[in-house]
Amino acid sequence: MDEFARIRLWTGGRQRPEWQRSRGVVVGIGDDAAVLEPDREGAGAPRHLVWTIDTMVEDVHFSTSTMDDADIGWKALASNVSDIAAMGAEPRHALVSVSMPRSRDPERVRRLYDGLYECADRYGVAIVGGDTTASPDRLVVTVALGGSVEAGKAVTRAGARPGDLVFLTGPVGLSAAGLHWLSGAAGNFTGPVPLEAAEAAGTAALVRAHRRPQPSVAAGRLLAASGACTSLNDVSDGLASEAREIAEASGAALVIRERLLPVPGDLAAYARAAAGGDGARAGELLLGWMLGGGEDYVLLGTMDPAAAGRLAAAFREAGLELHVIGEAEAGPAGVWLEPADGGPRRPAGAAGYNHFGVGREEGR
Amino acid sequence: MDEFARIRLWTGGRQRPEWQRSRGVVVGIGDDAAVLEPDREGAGAPRHLVWTIDTMVEDVHFSTSTMDDADIGWKALASNVSDIAAMGAEPRHALVSVSMPRSRDPERVRRLYDGLYECADRYGVAIVGGDTTASPDRLVVTVALGGSVEAGKAVTRAGARPGDLVFLTGPVGLSAAGLHWLSGAAGNFTGPVPLEAAEAAGTAALVRAHRRPQPSVAAGRLLAASGACTSLNDVSDGLASEAREIAEASGAALVIRERLLPVPGDLAAYARAAAGGDGARAGELLLGWMLGGGEDYVLLGTMDPAAAGRLAAAFREAGLELHVIGEAEAGPAGVWLEPADGGPRRPAGAAGYNHFGVGREEGR
Repeated sequence: MDEFARIRLWTGGRQRPEWQRSRGVVVGIGDDAAVLEPDREGAGAPRHLVWTIDTMVEDVHFSTSTMDDADIGWKALASNVSDIAAMGAEPRHALVSVSMPRSRDPERVRRLYDGLYECADRYGVAIVGGDTTASPDRLVVTVALGGSVEAGKAVTRAGARPGDLVFLTGPVGLSAAGLHWLSGAAGNFTGPVPLEAAEAAGTAALVRAHRRPQPSVAAGRLLAASGACTSLNDVSDGLASEAREIAEASGAALVIRERLLPVPGDLAAYARAAAGGDGARAGELLLGWMLGGGEDYVLLGTMDPAAAGRLAAAFREAGLELHVIGEAEAGPAGVWLEPADGGPRRPAGAAGYNHFGVGREEGR
Repeated sequence: MDEFARIRLWTGGRQRPEWQRSRGVVVGIGDDAAVLEPDREGAGAPRHLVWTIDTMVEDVHFSTSTMDDADIGWKALASNVSDIAAMGAEPRHALVSVSMPRSRDPERVRRLYDGLYECADRYGVAIVGGDTTASPDRLVVTVALGGSVEAGKAVTRAGARPGDLVFLTGPVGLSAAGLHWLSGAAGNFTGPVPLEAAEAAGTAALVRAHRRPQPSVAAGRLLAASGACTSLNDVSDGLASEAREIAEASGAALVIRERLLPVPGDLAAYARAAAGGDGARAGELLLGWMLGGGEDYVLLGTMDPAAAGRLAAAFREAGLELHVIGEAEAGPAGVWLEPADGGPRRPAGAAGYNHFGVGREEGR
């Protein structure tokens, strides 16, 4: 199969030209570069552009024993959508570069694109170009994503002030717990662990969180529009390290209260099961997944406390979650955890949490 | 060295914030995503955005025996600049994703960024973000590049009409000849072949063309502004295959006259030397490099013959090359070569040219 036949197999007939046109696509896949109209406010001033890029490498960021090909495609785009959400922006156009071993079945690559386009359709992203190349050993998927935001409305990591409330737009730790279960189950299957096995084990919600994360675009848009969100980050690398990024960019201390962290029932139940009923060990596992797990793609941020009631109401009305989990303090940049047992606060980034094997090495 | 220390080593202090600001950068490296102002025509309507992405994989697109680390960085950006040039657009902002083996010396990665920033400075590109990850075995570099063009002025591959003239903005085949010499010389050195060795062998111009290609942005801008350029493509994969892309997108036949192809003296001399003085073999080598070599990053296109004199004068005045090498004809899409010896025309894409080992697998 030659280059063009393969690109047709992977990208042909996926997004209707009229729909792409409605997303500002003037020239899409197939020329030297894509040509796009910038978004405007009505017929007026153009929005700012918001750009990000993320790479996923086989056996570094994912394993084909825990992730289906379609999941890999979904997540490669979703991780970028989450970065756009973390600026308060809307995702718009993506470029996709896939490097794969020549021996890789083109059908498997097609399934990777299936997942990628599912995520694109879910978030209204037009796929406008890309690159496909050989890779000697391992699959490498890079997505560059462009979005837009009203001029002056982008929310960075740098604005947290003492007294601000620290919030999350959803629970953290589900993805890490899902990976924990998948890693244990992987030996029982030749291909990726089937979802049916997770359903039988009662871990389907965790596995879905790991394989099909749902970035928080709507929450990010509400936060940017509110004018009251002082800093924002997405939880791709773990709550503790994302909080540290905000703390360092803002020159503030963030205090996270363990008892305020949202814990879904499925997550608590799996922690108990994984600990073999040892309650203390279950608590350690749970906290490790929550603070160090990453890949949850909810948003972490700070807000003006005077706006807390207004924002809570807006989130409730939109059917979105908003959890206040602590507050910002003056003082040297850092992240503190106030334990649920009433013990003294301690640094939240302590070693020992980042031990989940497969995961993001680093990123921006 | 941790993530942030490495990113500082590689990207710190490279481009002054004031300069980036003058390029529309609102938020640059260091947050979840970059925030950029779209270009406008004066204070008026925004320009169209032009986006492309290209990946280079070690041992597929380059070898560290023929390319210095800085050359790899230069070329990773230059190949994208060339795609932007091929739309008649100006390059503006880039995202850079580098995946590397954990054992790779951070100093070598810094040299890769040296070359990347040299190319960025040469073409006025602001590096606004990126991703760095581990890769188990091989270096993978992906650059996504955004540019801008006046609304409605982008030139695609699809507009060639019968009677149009086919042109090149510079010679082709130099890069392939340089790689040919480098591949033969590589065994004599432990690291990349030094430029001094090429200077001693009289092949420095070829080696520079291979390692430090100079995309044709100024030529592309002239062509887009002229309104007379009916199709445009950059020569990344070889003249024959790039011409075929225009022919297929336009539904036209392109005829290339061998005697009109520009042949620099250095290229002809190396072909004679590589053929051991066998004139016929030298001609075959030369034609193979020109038609199938690729990575020259000049522009190939078609133009309205009525504008030929005006364009030739404009290029001369700007100190740029413009070579008419044939014409477009009606009829089924295809590319014909009219041999210099007066023999009958034959398909230009005949098998046997794409045998240069390391090279682009495919791309858009």
